[in-house]
Amino acid sequence: MGLFSKDIKTLNDLFVHQLRDIYYAEKQIVQALPDMIEKATDRGLKQGFETHLGETKNHVKRLEQVFKMHGVEAKGIDCPAIDGIIEEADDVTSEVEDKAVLDAALIAAAQAVEHYEMTRYGTLIAWAKQLGRPDCANVLQQNLEEEKAADSKLTSIAERNVNVKAA
Amino acid sequence: MGLFSKDIKTLNDLFVHQLRDIYYAEKQIVQALPDMIEKATDRGLKQGFETHLGETKNHVKRLEQVFKMHGVEAKGIDCPAIDGIIEEADDVTSEVEDKAVLDAALIAAAQAVEHYEMTRYGTLIAWAKQLGRPDCANVLQQNLEEEKAADSKLTSIAERNVNVKAA
Repeated sequence: MGLFSKDIKTLNDLFVHQLRDIYYAEKQIVQALPDMIEKATDRGLKQGFETHLGETKNHVKRLEQVFKMHGVEAKGIDCPAIDGIIEEADDVTSEVEDKAVLDAALIAAAQAVEHYEMTRYGTLIAWAKQLGRPDCANVLQQNLEEEKAADSKLTSIAERNVNVKAA
Repeated sequence: MGLFSKDIKTLNDLFVHQLRDIYYAEKQIVQALPDMIEKATDRGLKQGFETHLGETKNHVKRLEQVFKMHGVEAKGIDCPAIDGIIEEADDVTSEVEDKAVLDAALIAAAQAVEHYEMTRYGTLIAWAKQLGRPDCANVLQQNLEEEKAADSKLTSIAERNVNVKAA
């Protein structure tokens, strides 16, 4: 995007911009998850991250499908938000030595990522419907549902096991 | 936090660390909201941002209350996540000229902020309860409820007015 021009003219431009933002974000998450899997100790948590890595790779593919359906090039754009969220996750988790406390920190970091994705998909779905693209909205909804389910699963792992061990 | 030491030893340390993270974040939001109020055109949206600025100032005070109850110094620490979310909000909104499309972009940006806060408060409340501090959890819950209500209000403004005008 140009520094001195206003490149977003319409809601459709804004939709495509945000689609590229979340496309970049999902790809960054694919890069970040293996390190989180490596750091996790709780078996359920490690397994949950592994499942979500598979889902996240699928989210990237679904986004490519939406780009194609909408007739625009599938490309990412810088997303300082997800970069900041992942940077903060790295900062915090590198400060923790105790394995159970580290698991609690990893869950918090992963839930911040999930919530970022949930808000972006929620917005994209609303805009897709407004733009007369319920077909795109349906595909995006599948990603949203998996992010919500991943977030709920993390809450359950935290409350049943990890927080108890960490305290 | 030290670069070469692991300063978070316990769940309590992690709780205080995250409390300082959201304290910094709430203060950054107090700084960012006046610009969003200025940029908004839709009357309901402008009013919603104004109300939320008042609430956010109150969230800072509630956090100071929690620091006091928990017997630790009220101070912020760098939070790359909220910095990234606000940077992205500035980047996107500065790209948009059309007032209705700008309102849609402002709502998306504000909802990303709300979701970041919702995840952080959700985690802090779970940790406070685990640490035997239901009193701190109750105060944090009040902030969480207001963030959730602000998010729902933004969805309603988007769906009833802003997205329709922007499309």
